[in-house]
Amino acid sequence: MPALPGFRDFYPEECARRNYVVSTWRKVATKYGFVEFDGPTLESTDLYRKKNEEGAEILDQLYSFRDRGDREVALRPEMTPTLARMVAARERNYRKPMKWFCVSNFFRHERQQKGRLREFLQFNADIIGDATPQADAETLALAIDLMRAFGFSAEDFVVRLSDRKAWMDFLASQGCDEVQSRLALACADKLEREPAESLNAKLAPTGLTVEALKSFIAAGSPSAFESVLSALAARGLSDFVQPDLSIVRGLAYYTGVVFEVFDRSKNLRALAGGGRYDGLIAGLSDGASDLPAIGFGMGDVVLGHLIDETPAASALLEAATTPACEVYVVIADEARRNEALGIVQAARDLGFATDFSLKPAKVGRQFQDAELLGARQAIVVGQEWPLVKLKNLSTRQEEAIDNSMLARCLKKTEQS
Amino acid sequence: MPALPGFRDFYPEECARRNYVVSTWRKVATKYGFVEFDGPTLESTDLYRKKNEEGAEILDQLYSFRDRGDREVALRPEMTPTLARMVAARERNYRKPMKWFCVSNFFRHERQQKGRLREFLQFNADIIGDATPQADAETLALAIDLMRAFGFSAEDFVVRLSDRKAWMDFLASQGCDEVQSRLALACADKLEREPAESLNAKLAPTGLTVEALKSFIAAGSPSAFESVLSALAARGLSDFVQPDLSIVRGLAYYTGVVFEVFDRSKNLRALAGGGRYDGLIAGLSDGASDLPAIGFGMGDVVLGHLIDETPAASALLEAATTPACEVYVVIADEARRNEALGIVQAARDLGFATDFSLKPAKVGRQFQDAELLGARQAIVVGQEWPLVKLKNLSTRQEEAIDNSMLARCLKKTEQS
Repeated sequence: MPALPGFRDFYPEECARRNYVVSTWRKVATKYGFVEFDGPTLESTDLYRKKNEEGAEILDQLYSFRDRGDREVALRPEMTPTLARMVAARERNYRKPMKWFCVSNFFRHERQQKGRLREFLQFNADIIGDATPQADAETLALAIDLMRAFGFSAEDFVVRLSDRKAWMDFLASQGCDEVQSRLALACADKLEREPAESLNAKLAPTGLTVEALKSFIAAGSPSAFESVLSALAARGLSDFVQPDLSIVRGLAYYTGVVFEVFDRSKNLRALAGGGRYDGLIAGLSDGASDLPAIGFGMGDVVLGHLIDETPAASALLEAATTPACEVYVVIADEARRNEALGIVQAARDLGFATDFSLKPAKVGRQFQDAELLGARQAIVVGQEWPLVKLKNLSTRQEEAIDNSMLARCLKKTEQS
Repeated sequence: MPALPGFRDFYPEECARRNYVVSTWRKVATKYGFVEFDGPTLESTDLYRKKNEEGAEILDQLYSFRDRGDREVALRPEMTPTLARMVAARERNYRKPMKWFCVSNFFRHERQQKGRLREFLQFNADIIGDATPQADAETLALAIDLMRAFGFSAEDFVVRLSDRKAWMDFLASQGCDEVQSRLALACADKLEREPAESLNAKLAPTGLTVEALKSFIAAGSPSAFESVLSALAARGLSDFVQPDLSIVRGLAYYTGVVFEVFDRSKNLRALAGGGRYDGLIAGLSDGASDLPAIGFGMGDVVLGHLIDETPAASALLEAATTPACEVYVVIADEARRNEALGIVQAARDLGFATDFSLKPAKVGRQFQDAELLGARQAIVVGQEWPLVKLKNLSTRQEEAIDNSMLARCLKKTEQS
């Protein structure tokens, strides 16, 4: 019996990959001064209804049900509503801006396709309580450095940077009201995927055409990005960013900078995406909290595909996920097993990842196991003199030891 | 709006606690040569029906529902069925014994009470494919060393060790068949919680009495524990274990050693529990795989209470969860912000957790933030000569630096 469709079993090799991705996310976010938070896996369904308009894709894909207490509950499909709920309840306890990240699992009843699963991991980072382009740049720099930490260079990925405000200004200048603007943005979001004819039909109520949208995109809006690009240039990160107004993002609530991270070859879906959402926390908390915010998410599925396609990234992953055994205790004389157990315990107490054979086994088989586990050192508890010896498994050199020398003799494997 | 009852928000302080518990679990298990796996959060409900008898508490507490594809699915309440499913599918790929662990979240619709939540984290470790007392001892030693890693000593906790086989032998000697034995075990499990009168009534069909059960427990069964205790003594872990046949464990499938970890003061529920279940994998996999196994689980909720009650454990937790900022870049001259951004980036590229003020702020306020974040070093980008200086925030010593010296001058915070 396999896992449910769209859900994953993480066998040790796959779990090591997952943990590598998670710990890389954590390491970079911590380097940026972000602190981790998390929420419950299950929330009240209302939390998601509040944020998303009726008929929104995310609501159609919700794992929602009545629990044994007759509450309508849902497996979280995204983090922002939980974040807004938590921020509204306790933001007074925290200095602004709050730089928060999380690494959580999310659930969407997606159609089966490449890059999409029904349970996936996602890194989310948000800066809450700062409306400046400096916060935008800090967020973008984090997204870029996450990608770099996985071994990707400017040849592998690009951040396509856009601005909702530039779009709204343009649409206002074309006489669009709010409803028309929303419609126009929905069409702009589909320019690369839907034929011009059908889009022009949809655009009719706005008085705009595909051509008009395309010429706005082509003209660009350099002033919109000036401060952000300058702050990224000061960090030496210009090569990773490309202003591109064709990025719109589907969701209605964005108010400023929006961006998506793509592989340069455009083989894959977006690796990450986000933007500024200054009114959302107030909306979700019924005004209990009114803080500007910018954030983004990066999932593990598309990222995994790009790692596999990129030799430098695969090499980093492989180096980080090799077996972790440092010391293998070979029991060459079964009568001395209890003595060997004492040595196993002592090595572990010293902090070494230590393993041994639970069953009596031939010495050759035990050395073979040591090798399979990646051990660099073996302690041999034997019949011959010296009774206990330490063997370096790369150089094959041996030396006699006693327990009191253990700490001095064992060598810590270099941390990757 | 709070989280659902029985579910937790992890604000940064609480998330740091959670991550400390998780990383301690991982560190010790890895030291023991266990490798991590995980499964999906959602499984087919049938998977749990198969393992648990109808009417079992775990089924009554299941979060089970029909998904959009009309499958009956459930949020996982425990790991063993997933483990058995995964092992049966691929055990041929792995050398035996398989030493596997996981750190996963589980869901049970519990009545609200101390030590019980509806979503909780649990560490699980299992040795699969070894039926020897050596595997039992390795499992018990892991449980003990997990507790020690949190700062608990033999004065704080004890492993109460029992044996299902000793129980089954005793019950057979009293003429009990399988059904009667199961009934007697269920009563033995409740000796400490239910009055003798009501238990005696329940025991009637077995021909046994509370007194008979109690005298079996009091007599002990020393031979049952001999090999395990000897292997634990060889590791110097005898102080942490106490043979105690009153430990029965509710579940029907245990076949040998069973144990529970308790705080010495008995204020709390069990911190961990498990045992040998040699027939279960065959049963759950319809015979596709038939491997002996022993395992246990340790949850985060009761453990958290004991950490809070134990000064040595609280101190370790606090030391491990202090803020992580290493370098704070103070922008004393706003005109030099872009230069400061370059320094921020350089320090982060060197691997330092680095923060700075996104908004213009008074120098005093920036130093205050540096202190709040726990930074030990500040780089001041200023108006006065030297334009860039490094300040040790403990000693208040300053020195002039330039960017090329950054790597040499910055000092890595000692890892906890």
